Order: sequence, then C-alpha cells, then structure tokens
Amino acid sequence: MIIQINMDFNSDEALYIQLCNEIIRGIALEQIHEGDVLPSVRQLAEVIGINMHTVNKAYTVLKQEGFIKLDRRRGAIISLDVDKYQAIQELRENLNVVLTRALCKNVTREETHQLVDEIFDRYMPGAGGEDR
Amino acid sequence: MIIQINMDFNSDEALYIQLCNEIIRGIALEQIHEGDVLPSVRQLAEVIGINMHTVNKAYTVLKQEGFIKLDRRRGAIISLDVDKYQAIQELRENLNVVLTRALCKNVTREETHQLVDEIFDRYMPGAGGEDR
Repeated sequence: MIIQINMDFNSDEALYIQLCNEIIRGIALEQIHEGDVLPSVRQLAEVIGINMHTVNKAYTVLKQEGFIKLDRRRGAIISLDVDKYQAIQELRENLNVVLTRALCKNVTREETHQLVDEIFDRYMPGAGGEDR
Repeated sequence: MIIQINMDFNSDEALYIQLCNEIIRGIALEQIHEGDVLPSVRQLAEVIGINMHTVNKAYTVLKQEGFIKLDRRRGAIISLDVDKYQAIQELRENLNVVLTRALCKNVTREETHQLVDEIFDRYMPGAGGEDR
C-alpha cells in the first residue's frame, strides 16, 4: 500500500480533518483498498510529524463515517460501510452546505455541474462522462 | 430582517459552524440581504441560548469567508465579497472533499448531478434548470 499524504501545516483546516480527507482521497483513487491495514497511530504520527492524538482523532472520525474498522489486534482496516441510502443523504447535506456558499457568490448551476464532471473525470476517467 | 436559525444541540457539528451555515442559508434564500445588519453578538447569543464566544467565532469565520463586514460602530453587516474566480476555486476544493467521500460509497455521477439540480431548484426555482 503506497499512499501519498499531503498535510498543509499553514492551512486553517484542522490537521485531523486534513488527514481524514487524504486517506479518503487515497481510497477514491484506489491507492488503498478494502481490507488494507493502515499504519499504526504511532507510525503515522512519526512519519507525518504530527501528534498521536491527531492521528487517533482522524481514525475515530474515519470509523464514524464508515471508512475503516478499528480492530484491537490488527489496527485500522479499510472497511467501507456502503449504505447507499445513507451515502446519498450525507452527500445531499454536504452539497447543501457547499452549494449555498457558492450560490451566495453567484456561482451558476452550469459551473457547478462542470466542476462535478471535472472531479468525476479525475477519479473515474471514462466512467459515465464524456468519452475520452 | 426575519431569519430562522435552526441549531441542533445534539449534532456532532460544532455550534459556530452550524450558525455560519444557517446565516449563509438565510443569504442564499434571500431572507437576509447585502447591507443588512446582523444582531449583536450578545443579542444573538441570548436568543439562541449559546455562548457569546460561539457567536463571535461564527462572525469571525463569516468575515474570513467574505460574507460579512465587521463595523466597530454598526456591528456585523452582510457584505458579499464576490470574487468569482475565488468562489469557483473554493467550490472546487469543497466539492473535491465532499465528492471523494461519496465516490468511496459508490454514489454515481448521475446521482450527484441530480442532487445539484435539486438544491439549485430549491434556492433558485426556475433559474437555469427545468421549466416548472
């Protein structure tokens, strides 16, 4: 398992949220797969150069959001809880927060659809979009 | 100015973030407009039943994100910093975070486009979407 984790120590975004986002990006990019074991809290904290509490918090959030299972013996294991109905509900809520911000700033419906396609093209080239 | 603010005290979402989101929703729904003055920190804290620090933090974030100006005399004034290029960049980053989560949970491109339309229809009925 090779996963690239980019942390921005100057960002306003909390480090544990950045770490969650990076691991989720790794899953989306198929760098990490169902059943893969993540590094231990201590290992990851050392490699990235952050506090163990930060890694712990990230792993707890990833568990809550249904991306990993925490096994006492093996550690953090990628395990996707794919409840489609719940996934759609969560996306609806998240999009609502993100799109109301964009709406206030006059971003249009068309621009939003374009960005959605751009992101899907990046993660799933050729799947469901334009032929390329 | 009449704005409905729904806070969920049982939510995992921090109260200051909920408050930000509610005020931004009020702007998107055109319940609050450019130039409107928000209640003072003390007033809003009392009405909602939350700490003044929480309201202060929300106002600070709203200022950083370009939704209000803080005037020493008049208080928090709705003032939209509409830099379209920046707005698109922010939406791109936010969508990236939200959509990678959805992708891992097998939400499709089509389902995402539908949700985008659903939200635009709610906030801007008839604008750019299906005729209704």
